[in-house]
Order: sequence, then structure tokens, then C-alpha cells
Amino acid sequence: MMSGNSYGKLFTVTTFGESHGLALGAIVDGCPPGLEISEEDLQIDLDRRKPGTSKFTTQRREADQVKIFSGVFEGKTTGTPIGMMIENTDQRSKDYGNIKETFRPAHADYVYDHKYGFRDYRGGGRSSARETAMRVAAGSIAKKYLKQKLGIEVKGYLSQLGPIKIEKVDWSVINDNPFFCPDVDKVDEMATYMAALNKEGNSIGAKITVVATGMIPGLGEPIFDRLDADLAHALMSINAVKGIEIGAGFDCVAQKGTEHRDEMTPEGFLSNNAGGVLGGISSGQDLVAHIALKPTSSMRLPGKSINQKGEAIEVVTHGRHDPCVGIRATPIAEAMMALCLMDHYLRHRAQNADVTCETPVIKGQA
Amino acid sequence: MMSGNSYGKLFTVTTFGESHGLALGAIVDGCPPGLEISEEDLQIDLDRRKPGTSKFTTQRREADQVKIFSGVFEGKTTGTPIGMMIENTDQRSKDYGNIKETFRPAHADYVYDHKYGFRDYRGGGRSSARETAMRVAAGSIAKKYLKQKLGIEVKGYLSQLGPIKIEKVDWSVINDNPFFCPDVDKVDEMATYMAALNKEGNSIGAKITVVATGMIPGLGEPIFDRLDADLAHALMSINAVKGIEIGAGFDCVAQKGTEHRDEMTPEGFLSNNAGGVLGGISSGQDLVAHIALKPTSSMRLPGKSINQKGEAIEVVTHGRHDPCVGIRATPIAEAMMALCLMDHYLRHRAQNADVTCETPVIKGQA
Amino acid sequence: MMSGNSYGKLFTVTTFGESHGLALGAIVDGCPPGLEISEEDLQIDLDRRKPGTSKFTTQRREADQVKIFSGVFEGKTTGTPIGMMIENTDQRSKDYGNIKETFRPAHADYVYDHKYGFRDYRGGGRSSARETAMRVAAGSIAKKYLKQKLGIEVKGYLSQLGPIKIEKVDWSVINDNPFFCPDVDKVDEMATYMAALNKEGNSIGAKITVVATGMIPGLGEPIFDRLDADLAHALMSINAVKGIEIGAGFDCVAQKGTEHRDEMTPEGFLSNNAGGVLGGISSGQDLVAHIALKPTSSMRLPGKSINQKGEAIEVVTHGRHDPCVGIRATPIAEAMMALCLMDHYLRHRAQNADVTCETPVIKGQA
Amino acid sequence: MMSGNSYGKLFTVTTFGESHGLALGAIVDGCPPGLEISEEDLQIDLDRRKPGTSKFTTQRREADQVKIFSGVFEGKTTGTPIGMMIENTDQRSKDYGNIKETFRPAHADYVYDHKYGFRDYRGGGRSSARETAMRVAAGSIAKKYLKQKLGIEVKGYLSQLGPIKIEKVDWSVINDNPFFCPDVDKVDEMATYMAALNKEGNSIGAKITVVATGMIPGLGEPIFDRLDADLAHALMSINAVKGIEIGAGFDCVAQKGTEHRDEMTPEGFLSNNAGGVLGGISSGQDLVAHIALKPTSSMRLPGKSINQKGEAIEVVTHGRHDPCVGIRATPIAEAMMALCLMDHYLRHRAQNADVTCETPVIKGQA
Repeated sequence: MMSGNSYGKLFTVTTFGESHGLALGAIVDGCPPGLEISEEDLQIDLDRRKPGTSKFTTQRREADQVKIFSGVFEGKTTGTPIGMMIENTDQRSKDYGNIKETFRPAHADYVYDHKYGFRDYRGGGRSSARETAMRVAAGSIAKKYLKQKLGIEVKGYLSQLGPIKIEKVDWSVINDNPFFCPDVDKVDEMATYMAALNKEGNSIGAKITVVATGMIPGLGEPIFDRLDADLAHALMSINAVKGIEIGAGFDCVAQKGTEHRDEMTPEGFLSNNAGGVLGGISSGQDLVAHIALKPTSSMRLPGKSINQKGEAIEVVTHGRHDPCVGIRATPIAEAMMALCLMDHYLRHRAQNADVTCETPVIKGQA
Repeated sequence: MMSGNSYGKLFTVTTFGESHGLALGAIVDGCPPGLEISEEDLQIDLDRRKPGTSKFTTQRREADQVKIFSGVFEGKTTGTPIGMMIENTDQRSKDYGNIKETFRPAHADYVYDHKYGFRDYRGGGRSSARETAMRVAAGSIAKKYLKQKLGIEVKGYLSQLGPIKIEKVDWSVINDNPFFCPDVDKVDEMATYMAALNKEGNSIGAKITVVATGMIPGLGEPIFDRLDADLAHALMSINAVKGIEIGAGFDCVAQKGTEHRDEMTPEGFLSNNAGGVLGGISSGQDLVAHIALKPTSSMRLPGKSINQKGEAIEVVTHGRHDPCVGIRATPIAEAMMALCLMDHYLRHRAQNADVTCETPVIKGQA
Repeated sequence: MMSGNSYGKLFTVTTFGESHGLALGAIVDGCPPGLEISEEDLQIDLDRRKPGTSKFTTQRREADQVKIFSGVFEGKTTGTPIGMMIENTDQRSKDYGNIKETFRPAHADYVYDHKYGFRDYRGGGRSSARETAMRVAAGSIAKKYLKQKLGIEVKGYLSQLGPIKIEKVDWSVINDNPFFCPDVDKVDEMATYMAALNKEGNSIGAKITVVATGMIPGLGEPIFDRLDADLAHALMSINAVKGIEIGAGFDCVAQKGTEHRDEMTPEGFLSNNAGGVLGGISSGQDLVAHIALKPTSSMRLPGKSINQKGEAIEVVTHGRHDPCVGIRATPIAEAMMALCLMDHYLRHRAQNADVTCETPVIKGQA
Repeated sequence: MMSGNSYGKLFTVTTFGESHGLALGAIVDGCPPGLEISEEDLQIDLDRRKPGTSKFTTQRREADQVKIFSGVFEGKTTGTPIGMMIENTDQRSKDYGNIKETFRPAHADYVYDHKYGFRDYRGGGRSSARETAMRVAAGSIAKKYLKQKLGIEVKGYLSQLGPIKIEKVDWSVINDNPFFCPDVDKVDEMATYMAALNKEGNSIGAKITVVATGMIPGLGEPIFDRLDADLAHALMSINAVKGIEIGAGFDCVAQKGTEHRDEMTPEGFLSNNAGGVLGGISSGQDLVAHIALKPTSSMRLPGKSINQKGEAIEVVTHGRHDPCVGIRATPIAEAMMALCLMDHYLRHRAQNADVTCETPVIKGQA
């Protein structure tokens, strides 16, 4: 647990696997028994994240077919650990021979060598975003439980691609374009922008928004394991994320108290600057988070760096990679929010399963 | 550990205490033995955070005098748990009788009732920022170890107060004004702004920047317990924080790869958009984080809310409180960054104490 | 958490304090809200464990008066951490000056120096059984919850004192003699034995039995955190314990399957060799554990040892101590079993709160 | 982590898999980088534990061939998680159809239904000792590190089989007989005993002794995570274990202090009643533990039980099983001791890597 490859305390996902290793795998421990789950359920989100599905993502071709080895019997979870695996099939490790002794700027190469003494350099090894496939698989289990048992739904969209900002959110179109873009009027602009970027050999950042609807009040464990703190942890653990906002986020810096506070009425909250969290505990409003993803560090344009001897060199990244990691990150962000909520639901009921509150739950959305 | 009142896995701080209870306390478990530490060491930062020291903060008067009960023998830590306590002396619980049955908007009242069935309503009980005193006390121990043994120094400043943005950072002036403002030219403007705000009865948000200098490469435990992910958790666990940025933060959304990536040379990194973290592991560059704090929810201007029966009411917050929680938050943010780094240092050496890396460490700052 | 001063994952007790420090303290995190609890409730078991109550225990006089600082409001737990403390009042540290540079055989002196580089030598510092006072205080909270909410009762007795074995168990007499002896016919024999032992300046081992009645089936988390495994951990963490048995314990080595297996009937189990645990999960039968406690290492009879330079010396232990640590250990063992059960109850309901089982629960006792 | 399928806090093993599922698997997280390890290294102990190798164990035939999927690069551990799997090949689930709706006495059937609502009944599902294969695989990694880096060696033997007690320990013969018996003179007696038992259709208990030699002082984290407490947890988590002794174990109940205490001289300890642990910390003496394993619950002789409706029935266990689970348990007990030591070594150095102690280490063995 201390080596950082597990997420969640009661609903725990532990993963293994390198970009160019034999397989990626995960164990989900703590799933309540009796949940109907199948490989097909997991495949839906895996296919949404899968590489090679459009010309705007890496051209590595992986079926990303997940197999469940345990913990499910006669179609239902048994309460014992769920073992899962995806075989890697399209490794081209020879692409990476040239980075064996050099460090790519903004990649983890240099720090892995300093931390562990050496590294599996093929495709970035463990530091590759390829590991996020298992997060998505595990997240699907959490998503299904949250929806079926609690009515909570987790969904996300690309809210900014480089300079292009989303202006309207139409949930129905998100899965119909390769960007998870909720604003149909921006899709062509994005496609044109990405084509130019590819030609240039450069990469670009992005912003993603994730929302949980149908929330219940009471999730979150102050003072350190507040729901927003754990969510920040979950989302910041995704490759390339450099910023997290809950609700109003950095806009609150210039807000006055009268402007920021979400007033309450018997019919519900009048606004949602809080993003659904008060004092570290869910309020029943929609849980809203935004994340900033940096531009991919792999690009064809040369950059200054050093090699293992500490000598100055120039690096160009070959191999296949996403010009904008943000494009495929929506299902990953959804998965991490779902895992965070699932874990907090179990934590909450552990301590408070017998609590009754006479105050009515007010309408959460704003 | 599941109930959320502990921070850190190897250097663990567990706290207790309510705003108007008898005392605040903490246990620090996992401090390496042999560190010289005294109550005076801890008092320095506690005094920086202490309420009632300027007219811009709450007028509650607390000596915040910390007492160490265990874990230190003949002036040095013994490796056994360090028990500490601060007595509360200036409670005025009667100020809060009126909120017993009503929920203040943007406060934790409503969610505590739903989570726990009832709450200690006096001064916000456990949800009050008063608990952060123990974070500061514990953080001082971490700070001292980091500085003495590793040369790492953690320090912060107020980088924005409502609409007023800092333009230059002079570390030498930060502790000389009541705002932890690093730009002497902005201090008067801030004082004027706050005076007007107080008159209005409103509150305002703020932004704080925290930096660790003298960093070493290798801290952070991918893939889930990346240094930045755990730092995001640590900082987001502070009351009122709604956003976190590491390095370039949200600016990276519109950055191209060539712009964002920090090129490396034998003399050091050429920039620090990464904020000192690559692939979740410290690079040796300065660790840089920014946090957004929302405006205080307590204010004299009336707001719409509901009571425990769910009926519409209007709330005005009496009692003493900070019009800008950001003003006193700098030592708290420093403490959380120090606790995060200390914990990761111990985690790193647990697994990697015998690692050697032949690549030279390049100059971190940029 | 890694430094070992916390017990329990969902109902977590973290303690601090040395034998001759200012105070002993604990934080209980994870207690469900709404439990009526007072200092008086905790004092009952603390008084049962208290030193100096008979001539058969250490003559150190401690009131062991516990004070609760947080987590309880208007007589009920709030779900926030419960901070507690007992001040040390009768330290005589000068008694221990002579062991500063020598190691007492069978004590922790030698190993503490090797682990931490130096130690608080006064009265054994952290390694003294004095810390068990806080276990008892915390255990009382668990006991009260288990009894009130689940009908589970935890109680223990001295089942062997050196050569003297208990032959019958009368629960009603246990608290009426200084040994927690359930067999009135053995009390005089024990008193006589201890008097002779005191005269001799020697010490003796003991065996204690702890039982939980009113159990429910389903507690325990295979495969590693089985109820019996966690109970073994809990009980073995008590000072001086060298052996643990669940149910038939070591007798099962020579049992045949037909003899050991506890047959089941609609009216209940026909025997209880399992001690109430099957496959690591409680069966609803009485939970039964036995522990072996070694003779006190402190005694007046000289023994061979070494000093800090590694030179041969002879050691005689002055200071006040129990000639048989087992005598006061019954409330401690009860506390640890109660903490273990409480933690497992919360863990169980976290995952399985919505489980229904159509099979009737059969009568547990045998 | 809360659902109990992980062992170890810094060197963490998480397992999955049911007796008649597709595969057994494990993730080892926290292994220091740079350790040479291969599937062949792991296979050695797996083959020692493997079923079907003599007529005294279950006749199920499993190759138990382990495959490593990640965490090892160019023959060395990388510091990232090690994923491993063993496919199940010789399931005969139809043997178990008859227990679908009945509970076998002394098995986990009844408690699994009450805990989880239903169960994978095939071959005992998760409660089968088949899962211990992954413990053995993971333990081999720990064993190799301990031996190579620290000189610590973990080994065990069968010390009692039903009524037959070992009288001498010859480490060289242990792997030469099917019982892990260290006393060649007892092997025939054991074989004869087992043959008679098989004929009778009954089962029998056993006792196993595990020892770590070459120990270093300082391992163990008082007060709750003492080395002996965590070892008790580790060993009690093995299927069928009902008792644990450290060193003198239950013999200490009747020992006087002068008899029990292990006196120290510059040349070493004069005895080892402590079993290598003082105050919860390793002393440098051999670490010695004994465990009692109950007779297998599966047997051909009919027993009283109930079915899922709670009605009285008679049960006879078909299927293949070990008449004495103790016979194959030696490698499992070694694995658990090795995992416990490895974890504690990392925990110790996390906090105390910079500790120096001037006192010489005395010879541990006694």
C-alpha cells in the first residue's frame, strides 16, 4: 500500500503493468457482493478510452480486451477480490531503444532513474498512461454500483482544448465525437486545430470537467479525508494533470462571500459554487470538478536534455503517442471520480450506517 | 485511519478537537529519533497562525500555547509518538446558540447533520478552521527535520487577495506584514481593501503560493500516490480550499508542448512549468503549488437558508471570524506541504534506501 | 500508522505516552455517532486495571483518572475523534538511574537502543505496560457499543497462575478477588503462592481466557484479515504475551477431524473447538481465546547482562513492578478483544450492509 | 485494503483467486528495485507446496506454474508492482455440486453465506487453502531479498503430526521426505499413521515450527505492530491455524522469571525463551514460532449439519483433499514469516535508516 499502486481504502484498486510488458492487471478488493457485473460491462468504458480509434490519438492498436479471473460467480460479485487483466498486443519496444540512455524533457525518465536506480525504458514503462486502462476497468465496476444502488451517475467532457473553450454542454453528443466534446459547434474547430498541430509536430494541453449527478449528502471524512481532498488526490494521480478545481475553483479567489455562498431554500440550493462539497462532505448537489492536463511531452520537435552521464544532448521523441493526452482522458477522469465516490460511500456507511437525520434532504442541483 | 483524522502514512499526524471544546490535540507517529525539538520550535509557526494578532483577522484571543507530553526525551525525539495539546481558552459558545437549529449557507452545518445525525454546533465544532493549529504544530516538526537533515525549506506567501494580485516576490518581507504578502507595494492596498470589506460586512477569497526549495529528486510513489497527488490531497484538506495548481497549473491547458516542457541542461532545468514534479516524482526543482481559498462563509450580511425542519429562514452570522480565511492560511499551507514531503521522504527511503544512481543530479531551480 | 502506535482500521486507537512522562493519551477515531459515553464509563475498567489496588501488584499509586477532551457533545459521541488523557502522578524516575547504561535481561532496553539509537530509560519508557491504560480506556468505548447495539459482551478471567490451574468458571466472582480468578476455591492458593514468590523476589507467568458472548456471524475479512488473525495480532500486542490460542488451540494438533469439527444442528453447534471462528469469520458461537503471559522480567534476583559498551555486568531490578503481569492483564485482554470486534463490525458493514441471507442463524453457544 | 486480501504495509501482497476459478494471482508492491528474480526462483517453493506430490496429500494435480507479468525488467525488480498468476488446470467442480445447499461442519460454508449472502461453493471457493499458492510465490521474493541483502534465512519443519512428536531437528533432511519432517527416525511412523488414517477416512492435526536465522536487532514497531504481534497475525491468517507460540510460548505460563529470562553476555544470549523478540522488537536471536493446525474438516466420515433452509442433514465430504493440512503447510508458514520480516525491515529503515547505536550487537543464537 505504501508503494502507491493502490487507490481507495475500502473499495481498493491495485494495479500492475508496464507500457510494453506482457499485460496490465488489477485487483479490486472490497466490492460489495451481489452486484451483477460482466466483462462486457467493463468493456464499454475501455472502448471509450482505447487508443487508435481516431486520427487524433496514438496509432498504437490495442484491443484492450479485459478478462475477469475471480470474484464473480454466476454473474454476480461474491465479495472476494476481483482479478482482471488486459494483454498487451501491439508493443513496439524497438521504437524506444534510443531513449535507453537519454532523458526526454518533461517525461519521467530522469526521475525514475534517480528514484529506482534504473528503469524499464520501453514506452515509458510504468510511467506510461497505458496503465490508466486498468483504472477505467475498475472504475466501471464502481460506476455500475453507484448507479444501480444509489442513483449516482458520473460523467465527463472535454471543456477546453488548447485555446478552444466549450460554450455549451449537451450531454447527449459527448460520445458521438472523438473529443468527448459536449458542444457540437466546436467539434470541427477542434479537428482542424489538431490537424495543424500534428503537422507542426507539437502537442497541446486540455481541460476536462467531471460531474456526479444524483448525489447524496454525507460522503467525505473530515478533517483530512474530505471528499474534495480525496477527489483531488484521485484526479491529480492521472498522468499529466497539473491543476484541480472543485466548483468555482480559482474563480473563488476574487469572489465575495455573498457571491460565493450557495444559498439554501426548501426547494434546493440556489447556486453551486461549492461544487457539491461543504466542509469536506457532499451536500447532495452535483459534484463538479475540473482538471488541467498538460500537453504531451512526447513530440517530434527537438528539445534540450541530458543523457545518463549528465551530458548535454538533443532529444526527439519517436514512437506512437497522443498529441493531446486530454482527448482520451475523459473516461479516466470519470473512473477516478467513481472510485473516489464508491470508496467514500463504503467509508461513510461503515461509521454511520445507523444514523438517522430528521432534516429533509433538499434538492441538490442548482 | 478510515475516519479521516490522520494525515500521512509513515509520518502520521492524527488530530482531535473542536472549536469550543476543552482543547486541541495531536499525535505525531513516525518521527525519526534523534531530532532536537522543543515546544519553542513549534511555537514559532503557531504564533504566525495565531488569531487576534491584527485587525484583519478574527478577534478571538487564543495564546495557542502548545505542550508536548511524550516522545521527546532530553530534548530529542525518541522515535515514539509525540503527544501534543493546546488548551482552548477564549471560547464564547453562547455566540452560537442561534445556529443550533439553523444551517448557515456555505458552512458545514447541514452536511454534518446529515452525516452524523447531530453536531457540536458551537463555533462550527470540528469543522472550524481552529483545528488547523495542530496541523501547524505537527508541520513544524516536519519542517525542522526537512531543513536540518535534507536542506529542504518550505515557505509560502499570499499571492492574491480578492482582486489584488502580487507582482513581485520578496521573501524577506513576508513575515513583516499581517498578510504574508511578499510585495511591500501591495500591503497598503490590501489593508485599505480589508477595511472597506469589514465595513461592508462581507468576506473575500485569496490565493496562496507554497514553495519547497532545496528539493531532492525521487520523492513520490506512482502511480496513485504521486507526490503531486498527495500534495493536492494535503492542500485540499485545508478548510476553504477550492483549487490546486502544481507549477503552471491551469495555464498548461493553452500551452503547447514546446512551451510547457522544461528543457534540461547539465547546468539545470531551463524552466519550471512542472512545478518540480515529473511523472509524480520530485525532479529536484523547486516544488511549487498554488491554492485558491474561498471567501469566509461567516458574514454579517443576511442570506437565505433553511432550519432543521427544512423551513425557509434568513441567516446572519454573529460570532468572531476571519473576513478572509486566506490571510492566516500561509503557515497552514506550509505545514501541509512539509507533512507531505516528510511522509514521502520516509516512504521513498523505505523502498529505495539502497539505490544508487550514476546520473548526476542537475541543478533543480529554474 | 506505520510506526505501530495505532490499532484498528475503521475504529482506530492511537496512543502516546511513556511510563514516567507527563501523561498517557489516546485518540479514538471512527466511533459511530450517537453513543452515550462518559468519563465514568471508562473509569470502571481503568479501575479494574489500576496499579496498587492489592499487595499482589506494583505499589505505584496512580489514580488513572481519564479525561475526555473532544468527540463527545451533550453526553453522546459526535463521530469526530475522541481525545483522552491520563496524567502520570507517581513517577519515581530516580529509581531507574542505574539502568540508564545497562540492559535488563528480557526487557526491551537492548532492542530499543538498537532500533532508535537511544531510549527514555525511566521505568521502561514507552515499552512499559503502563501504556495499556489507554487501551483499556479505548476498549471501554468499544465494549459499550458492542453491548448496547449488538448485544455482544466481552469478558475474561485468569485461567492459570504459574502452576495453579482454574477448574471451574463462575463469572460472578471474577471481579471480587484481586486475580480475576473465576474459581473461588483457588483464590487462597493463589494468594499464598504470590506471597511466597514475593518473598523469593521472583516472578511468574500466567494464562488468561477472554470470551465474547452474544456474537453474530459474519465478522472477519479473509484471507489475511481473518477475525482470528486480527485477534491474534491484538492480543499478542499486549506486553509479555508469548502465545495465543483460539478455541481448542494447541489441543487440535492431536485431535482427529471427527473429534475437532463442531457439528451443527438446527438447535445450534454441538461443540466449540473452533472458538467461534470458521474460515476466519465469526460463526455466532462464543469467541474464545487464551493467552500466555511470561513472568515479569523485573525482579530482585540478580541476572547476567551487558552494559552499553558491551561489557559483562550483573543486573538487579529495583523500582516498583508487578511480580505477575498476568494478574492485571484481564481488563487489557478484554479491551483488545473488544477493539478487534468493534473494528471488524465496522469493516463488515462497510462492505456488506445490504446483504441478506435466507439461512437462519443457529444458536451459537455450545 | 480493508477487505483483507492484502498483507504487509510496505512490502504488500494482494491476492485473488478461488479454488475452482480460472486462476490465482497476486500483486507484490513495494519490493526494492534491483533484486534479481525469476519465475524459476519462485517455482522452487511452489513445488515444495504443490498438491499431488505424495500419497499423503490431495490427489488434485496442479502444475502450479507461476508467470510474472510486470515489475521485473532485464532480470531485476524495477520497484514497480510485480504481477503474477498461476492458472488452475485440474478443477473438478462437479464434485462439489452436492454442497451447494448444505454446510459442511468446520468449513467456511455457513459463515460465507451469512457474510456475503451467497458463495462460490466450488471446492470452497476463496476459503480453500488453494489461495496459499500465491502466498508462497510472494514469500519467495521476500525470502530471496532477506537472504541476499541481510543474511536472514527462513525455514520450517513439521514438529508434530497428531500424536507423533519430533525429537530431533536435522535441517538437512527436511526436504527429503513428504512431511517436511526433520527427524528421519519418525518418517516411517508418520507414513504408517497416515495410511491408517486414510483407511479410516479421518483427518488429523499438526504442529509446525518456523525459524529465521541470521536475524538483526531492531525489527518491530511497538506498541501495536510489534514483530511478534504481526507475526501472529501472519501465521494465524493461514488456513486451519488455531494457535501461535513465540519462543517458549505456553510453557512460559508455569515458568518463573529467573527461568524464563534470557540472560545476556558479551558472547551472546544464554537461552532463547523469548523466541527472538523483546518488547515487540527483534533481538538478533533466532526468531522462533510454532503453529497448531487443526485436522482437515473435509473427511469421508459423516457428520451432523444443516442445509440452507436450516434443516438437519448429514454431510459426507467428497472431492479431493489433504487428510492433514499440516503436511503441506511448512512452505506456507515460511512464506508468511518471510513476508512479515520483509515488511518490518522496510518499516524499520523508513523511520530509522540514519540511526547509529554504539552498543555492539551480541551473538543472537542461543
